Amino acid sequence: MAGFKHLVIVKFKEDVVVEDILKGMQKLVSEIDAVKSFEWGQDIEGEEMLRQGFTDAFLMTFEDKQGYTAFVGHPCHVEFSATFSTAIDKIVLLDFPSVVAKAAT
Amino acid sequence: MAGFKHLVIVKFKEDVVVEDILKGMQKLVSEIDAVKSFEWGQDIEGEEMLRQGFTDAFLMTFEDKQGYTAFVGHPCHVEFSATFSTAIDKIVLLDFPSVVAKAAT
Repeated sequence: MAGFKHLVIVKFKEDVVVEDILKGMQKLVSEIDAVKSFEWGQDIEGEEMLRQGFTDAFLMTFEDKQGYTAFVGHPCHVEFSATFSTAIDKIVLLDFPSVVAKAAT
Repeated sequence: MAGFKHLVIVKFKEDVVVEDILKGMQKLVSEIDAVKSFEWGQDIEGEEMLRQGFTDAFLMTFEDKQGYTAFVGHPCHVEFSATFSTAIDKIVLLDFPSVVAKAAT
């Protein structure tokens, strides 16, 4: 689906248990209806030069920007963000209306 | 869809016409069957501190890692990459099997 996307790429601190973070994130997206879909992936094989140290990508889809705004302001998100930010070494966030240039068949 | 993802986030050089890049990329994904879906987005509003200067995200989906490998080695991709790399100020690439934690309904 197109919609409005919230993309987060992360390098976690070394002592972080990524499974714990994921559990928290799964709980979060299940609690907030505005999150229409959520997928995650980990690249630990790719060339370091291309990854720039980043390992994990999180992609959430909202119906529109209003949905994303509702998510950001949701108390569960505010609480989770505080925890999440302590686990992070590096992060990039991009939020954008998605343009589907080739649709999945 | 889940599948294998190729995620590219980019900060283009200042004189780059992003529309031209996009046209080339759309041609590329239409030429290569292994690319099952392709979406793109631009975030020029988000906080600079969170975006780290990055503006554009490109997300391609393949059926599996083999599909991605076929794409990378495809002559059209090799040619496009050479052009693309000249347009780039900063880039991060992440390639990963996608885990769908909340499916679009």
